[in-house]
Amino acid sequence: MATLPTAVKIVEVGPRDGLQNEKEFVPTAVKIELIDRLSKAGFPNVEAASFVSPKWVPQMADGAEVMAGIARREGALYSVLTPNLRGLEGALAAHADEIVIFGAASEAFSQRNINCSIAESIERFVPVAQAAKAAGVRIRGSVSCSFGCPYQGEVPVASVVDVVQRFAALGCDEIDIADTIGVGTAKRVHEVFEAVTKVFPRERLSGHFHDTYGQALANIYAALEEGIAIFHASVAGLGGCPYAKGATGNVATEDVLYLMNGLGIQTGVDLDQVVEAGDFISKSIGRANASRAGKALLAKKQSAAECA
Amino acid sequence: MATLPTAVKIVEVGPRDGLQNEKEFVPTAVKIELIDRLSKAGFPNVEAASFVSPKWVPQMADGAEVMAGIARREGALYSVLTPNLRGLEGALAAHADEIVIFGAASEAFSQRNINCSIAESIERFVPVAQAAKAAGVRIRGSVSCSFGCPYQGEVPVASVVDVVQRFAALGCDEIDIADTIGVGTAKRVHEVFEAVTKVFPRERLSGHFHDTYGQALANIYAALEEGIAIFHASVAGLGGCPYAKGATGNVATEDVLYLMNGLGIQTGVDLDQVVEAGDFISKSIGRANASRAGKALLAKKQSAAECA
Repeated sequence: MATLPTAVKIVEVGPRDGLQNEKEFVPTAVKIELIDRLSKAGFPNVEAASFVSPKWVPQMADGAEVMAGIARREGALYSVLTPNLRGLEGALAAHADEIVIFGAASEAFSQRNINCSIAESIERFVPVAQAAKAAGVRIRGSVSCSFGCPYQGEVPVASVVDVVQRFAALGCDEIDIADTIGVGTAKRVHEVFEAVTKVFPRERLSGHFHDTYGQALANIYAALEEGIAIFHASVAGLGGCPYAKGATGNVATEDVLYLMNGLGIQTGVDLDQVVEAGDFISKSIGRANASRAGKALLAKKQSAAECA
Repeated sequence: MATLPTAVKIVEVGPRDGLQNEKEFVPTAVKIELIDRLSKAGFPNVEAASFVSPKWVPQMADGAEVMAGIARREGALYSVLTPNLRGLEGALAAHADEIVIFGAASEAFSQRNINCSIAESIERFVPVAQAAKAAGVRIRGSVSCSFGCPYQGEVPVASVVDVVQRFAALGCDEIDIADTIGVGTAKRVHEVFEAVTKVFPRERLSGHFHDTYGQALANIYAALEEGIAIFHASVAGLGGCPYAKGATGNVATEDVLYLMNGLGIQTGVDLDQVVEAGDFISKSIGRANASRAGKALLAKKQSAAECA
């Protein structure tokens, strides 16, 4: 059995990545309560908002209000997505601890989604990264489509490595390798992380997995075996897959925590409180809870209450 | 990266383990069509029926009709559950290729469910196993609650080893280590299989995982790392968890096949046909498809059809 990390950092991305595709606007107060519950549960890092044009992502239009309204936990980092300099200004005004910039490892995805090459898309972040550095704000780079693309299918490992190197050159403090459409499996996870750890420090790489094909936890386990110790997860599995209607998206935080607890890997996060937060947000937005562990633990609690 | 098996046997348990807890009786013709679809998809082994008193499991009352009605694929094995000698008679009359006998690794579970000790419960199978051997029928022993028990919680690894040894003494050809309530995680999977492979041949041990807490695929991956090459799975994730209403039960076959395909491990089973079979049975019994890969692949096919 491979030696696994003894502690990991779980980045809770539900409030931003999870909610951003919700059609119905989620009230600012609900977003704030969700983040506050997650902060209390102990997450060291919450992806809290996006400073993107409300024309593109209306759900995230209240980023400034959300950031102003949350009760920040001492020591925790609150990250926001910033697609451009205007977004960065919003992030700085909101006292974000970390900005998130992004690029695809798939040329076809980049062309179809932002109408430019991968190289150009990352080049555009140069002034954003410089201004963030000057302001003393952390930068995270997100490499989407690292395990496959809805348009071109296969994504070469070399493309992932290339984007990681470009983000490293921009001064990224952390880089996440994202399986945007959830098609990766454990062998590929080993291959990708083996390659990217050669060009960027292992301890600053994270895994962002989607559960679209049910593979996320096996992939996280494979990444742990590669010594990766930062993982993204979304409470209640918030966030569907925009490329397959009705399919599952982000891996559920509860399932990830259940795995880490079972492996004896420290997270600093209280699973019970996360289960409650997942129940809260699922009910608030009228969605089925997509966390298997969440559902099972809630059902257990329910039956215990009925027996009492 | 650990060396994994190059080929595995997937035992499809949906028609028996998956359907047995369905409240509404599933018509015999539907059961037969499901099994025939699975046979055509290439499964080397299908758990097809249960010869148990219809008083206890009314859903399985038509075992003889099901076994008589299916179109068996040359070389494939059709297994049936036999709780006693009467069940064995039914199994032999139905020309089952393999009988399944069972025992819990949890003393509390055994006492609560069948009102006797583990040792007594397995002792009762002695005449069944002898008669099966005499008839030249294969015997599989199923060790339930190998990773935890709804009543006693922790289940010692030594208890699992003990039941495996008892089944081995009965002449079992294959023994499955079952996580009945889905509470196991990858580290425990390594520990349990490391222990049981010391007392029974690795190549005749199988893993039966439930996805109640979302852990099944990570557990299967860990078992592969232990050299385990037989896995149970249930098409469309048929079969809920009787101990947590609304929670997930058996791991979905589609998700397991997606993993194996990604790992380059041969199964001999065609995923597309399994996805179709999963869609068929989910619609037939009016249940949501519980396979993540199944849902994603069906959604992809649907959107491809809409674009065409």
